[in-house]
Amino acid sequence: MYDKGISLAVIKRLPRYYRYLGDLLENDVVRISSKELSEKMNVTASQIRQDLNNFGGFGQQGYGYNVEYLHGEIGKILGLDKKYNVIIIGAGNLGQAIANYPDFERRGFVISRIFDVNPKLIGMSIRGVEICDVDGLEDYVRNNYVHIAALTVPKAKAAQLAGDLAEWGVKGIWNFAPIDFHLPKGVVVETVHLSDSLMRLSYSIKAMEEAGGAN
Amino acid sequence: MYDKGISLAVIKRLPRYYRYLGDLLENDVVRISSKELSEKMNVTASQIRQDLNNFGGFGQQGYGYNVEYLHGEIGKILGLDKKYNVIIIGAGNLGQAIANYPDFERRGFVISRIFDVNPKLIGMSIRGVEICDVDGLEDYVRNNYVHIAALTVPKAKAAQLAGDLAEWGVKGIWNFAPIDFHLPKGVVVETVHLSDSLMRLSYSIKAMEEAGGAN
Repeated sequence: MYDKGISLAVIKRLPRYYRYLGDLLENDVVRISSKELSEKMNVTASQIRQDLNNFGGFGQQGYGYNVEYLHGEIGKILGLDKKYNVIIIGAGNLGQAIANYPDFERRGFVISRIFDVNPKLIGMSIRGVEICDVDGLEDYVRNNYVHIAALTVPKAKAAQLAGDLAEWGVKGIWNFAPIDFHLPKGVVVETVHLSDSLMRLSYSIKAMEEAGGAN
Repeated sequence: MYDKGISLAVIKRLPRYYRYLGDLLENDVVRISSKELSEKMNVTASQIRQDLNNFGGFGQQGYGYNVEYLHGEIGKILGLDKKYNVIIIGAGNLGQAIANYPDFERRGFVISRIFDVNPKLIGMSIRGVEICDVDGLEDYVRNNYVHIAALTVPKAKAAQLAGDLAEWGVKGIWNFAPIDFHLPKGVVVETVHLSDSLMRLSYSIKAMEEAGGAN
């Protein structure tokens, strides 16, 4: 494996490389130099060379990178050559948005079940995936290998639920509640903090208005 | 102002402080030491003292921090003592999820309009906010001070739309499409990269399974 001893900072940048290379692939670009890629991605060419050297380079001096190969290799490092069994807990707008996101399935994230407490939603389906009563959640998780549970439930319920899911055997939690979990070893958590993101935006707007005196 | 010359890393951590202090406030905690806060937040006490010293400290040696005061001051730094006029472009599941998120309005982000192209959605409203035809978007933005446009449109439309919004006078773009924008000065962008987040999760699950040999 490539990825022994690679810094978290590099790992965090890989999805972005993967995304840019995917866009190039879609536009039938075969090769790209670190200089061209750096202009697109707005990072330095030396940063790119350094990052990609962590994985054995992939590039040939003077020829640039083979886009398809590099895309595939980064995909493997990210684990995108595998299939993941994903469940969604919470069939509200956000849960439905995730269920409807076609790119996820294309990258191997296969949604097998959606769970909710709302009797009006139970029994319906989204893109062919049934919305089930959350009462059956424990049974399902204990009897199926669930890689990822996407949690789109209210904050008040999220911590307890995450703890239960970890105990029942879920490997990863994709959390959308504005809360950080402290879970046992053997479970990984990735949180999308929407409100933190919005606060960074208000900070930037405020800073910009104060600097420029605009309006 | 406090925030001259403060590193971006500290600024990025502020929403998380704000969130934890808000939780403490809700639980009627009046004072907290950097040690207690560090245990909750899973960062070192010295990191906390160092971060908060950037803003004049707020703490008294031996007495800890006044939670309400600190929460309020960090809120001001983040610009949360102001009101923001927010529009949402894209009334699909994700746009509706944002429109339905009650915390945003409580923090001063007031949604004034939602825009969409879908005739089935136009004329409906979400929490009292009307969904309007996107044909009226330019007029609205040119004639109103729009702080933030939340973009929940397909990737193919996002770049053009962001450029137009910038030209028409929007100050900040809260982007949910998997794309990075290069916009002129005077507009700030904050992107929520859902798929990057999911890829970091698959990486972590893969790394964990390989390390532990689980399954």
